[in-house]
Amino acid sequence: MIETPYLLFLGDAPDGLAAKVAQGIKDWRPDNCVGQFRMEGCKADMKLPDMTLAEAWDAGARTLVIGVANRGGVISKAWKAVLLEALDQGYDIASGLHNLLRHEPDLAEKARGLGRTLHDVRIPVVQYPIANGEKRTGKRVLAVGTDCSVGKMYTALALDRDMRKAGMKSTFRATGQTGILITGEGVPLDAVIADFMAGSIEWLTPDNDADHWDIIEGQGSLYHVSYSGVTLALIHGGQPDALILCHEPTRTHMRGLPGYTLPSLEVVRDTSLHLAQVANPACKVVGISINTQHMDDAAAVAYLEEVEARLGLPAVDPYRHGAERLFEALAAI
Amino acid sequence: MIETPYLLFLGDAPDGLAAKVAQGIKDWRPDNCVGQFRMEGCKADMKLPDMTLAEAWDAGARTLVIGVANRGGVISKAWKAVLLEALDQGYDIASGLHNLLRHEPDLAEKARGLGRTLHDVRIPVVQYPIANGEKRTGKRVLAVGTDCSVGKMYTALALDRDMRKAGMKSTFRATGQTGILITGEGVPLDAVIADFMAGSIEWLTPDNDADHWDIIEGQGSLYHVSYSGVTLALIHGGQPDALILCHEPTRTHMRGLPGYTLPSLEVVRDTSLHLAQVANPACKVVGISINTQHMDDAAAVAYLEEVEARLGLPAVDPYRHGAERLFEALAAI
Repeated sequence: MIETPYLLFLGDAPDGLAAKVAQGIKDWRPDNCVGQFRMEGCKADMKLPDMTLAEAWDAGARTLVIGVANRGGVISKAWKAVLLEALDQGYDIASGLHNLLRHEPDLAEKARGLGRTLHDVRIPVVQYPIANGEKRTGKRVLAVGTDCSVGKMYTALALDRDMRKAGMKSTFRATGQTGILITGEGVPLDAVIADFMAGSIEWLTPDNDADHWDIIEGQGSLYHVSYSGVTLALIHGGQPDALILCHEPTRTHMRGLPGYTLPSLEVVRDTSLHLAQVANPACKVVGISINTQHMDDAAAVAYLEEVEARLGLPAVDPYRHGAERLFEALAAI
Repeated sequence: MIETPYLLFLGDAPDGLAAKVAQGIKDWRPDNCVGQFRMEGCKADMKLPDMTLAEAWDAGARTLVIGVANRGGVISKAWKAVLLEALDQGYDIASGLHNLLRHEPDLAEKARGLGRTLHDVRIPVVQYPIANGEKRTGKRVLAVGTDCSVGKMYTALALDRDMRKAGMKSTFRATGQTGILITGEGVPLDAVIADFMAGSIEWLTPDNDADHWDIIEGQGSLYHVSYSGVTLALIHGGQPDALILCHEPTRTHMRGLPGYTLPSLEVVRDTSLHLAQVANPACKVVGISINTQHMDDAAAVAYLEEVEARLGLPAVDPYRHGAERLFEALAAI
């Protein structure tokens, strides 16, 4: 568990896209963000107060979160100086970078000497169990996609936000690095050892109140040959009571796989539900989340209406129109 | 790659079952076995010549393979003395034990000093790629099961043996610890990091002659909630041209999951084929392998006939009746 609130480190981000982790934290957990730390040449801006390490500390920040991708997978000297200074000032540091903070000898040594924590959320720190398949109390919903990167995390975060607003009990359960940095905890599923994947999701979504919803962040797709095993482990470890289908209609092939076309929503619905009912026979598909970012307003509305009529399920773009109808569908279970 | 031939270390095995790894090597690769090394009290017997380390070395053995499970997960002092002596005599050592040889300081130090290799096949030594889904040349068959431990490895090994006997080009591709020790190479799939599972199977089954068959060892089951993700990674990484369904008819619930009933062969056929055709649209289900060890002769034959009639596919128990009809079904593709 990462201590909040955060100071967001944007480094020398060449553009806003390089700082998408920081953007996710700002968008979804603004209360966790005291300010932003930008170095010379930084082109990203989270519209948060620019602060020095000392100013943010005085404002309550306790963890410096690296919210930017590093160039070439190397932690530069300029970054390093800031990170070392942050440890000296009292901060823990959290990072989702592929190259780990703990593998930097100077950072590791200083953190050890000062008793600070380096959170490398890229890799697991827990020894997860093998899944036992036992029924757990409380309710769970999982977003499953026709492809990778179609908006599953966004859909889950929007649902969680709207359900909390409505006074329902819900918890977003992060299964990827960005989600973990947003919420401060979770399972970095893509880095878990094969035998323990489903068990890690059981661990992540334990017994809870009967009226509590775990909103589980989806990963990959049953139809993406590189990552499908991860998706099935989520379906079986998560024991979802409800599935939400996620799709991006303008994509011409599976992400990173030029020879592979996307499956239809109907096919994803049928296969996901069939496999989910192995672990939870009561599971239902309750709605559809469409990422319409590459469509104009008229095209988006027309597409949503067509999908809704075709599948007989509420179809929304939660970014464009809110997640209310999805959350109502969950509430009706 | 583990250097052959082997001296099989049976230690102080309390019974034959404890030495099932040695039995597998003896049964499937007898030419790799120079002899067996038994300690006082050993109750297992592979019907191989009992040899000292020196005798087996002179007979050509180059690797001491630990063919027995250790009690309580500890490498005893008595074992340790033999293993250290083997390193001194020139042997490499191979092991599928959960506790690793390399984590024993005395073994690790001696091996390093002498330039010997400690093969811990429990864990991967290769940095596998992310699967790219590209079509590879050559043919592949994968055994998929209604459950774990229903005879998938045995079926694959029997097929490989019979196809080679018939002059066909085939290679058994091990995906588990026992299979790796039998053949000397493979992927310990249950220990691979989630993101690289499918890629590890692509790596294991590369381009080959158009008339060559990779016989891929199956793992888990799409319907076993603890390990289903591993199975799907095999289906998508393996790009099989053919599937063989494996089943054990007397099992009353999924292995280790008392609340879970087994899926029917029809359900496993349909779901496995549907998902396999994502990676290889030409994939076919060609036969059924039934493990009839808990049935008498008459019951076994009756069951096989019933399944064959019901599914319209050759159904055999390769242990009882040979794998010929399965291999003929493959040859007909």
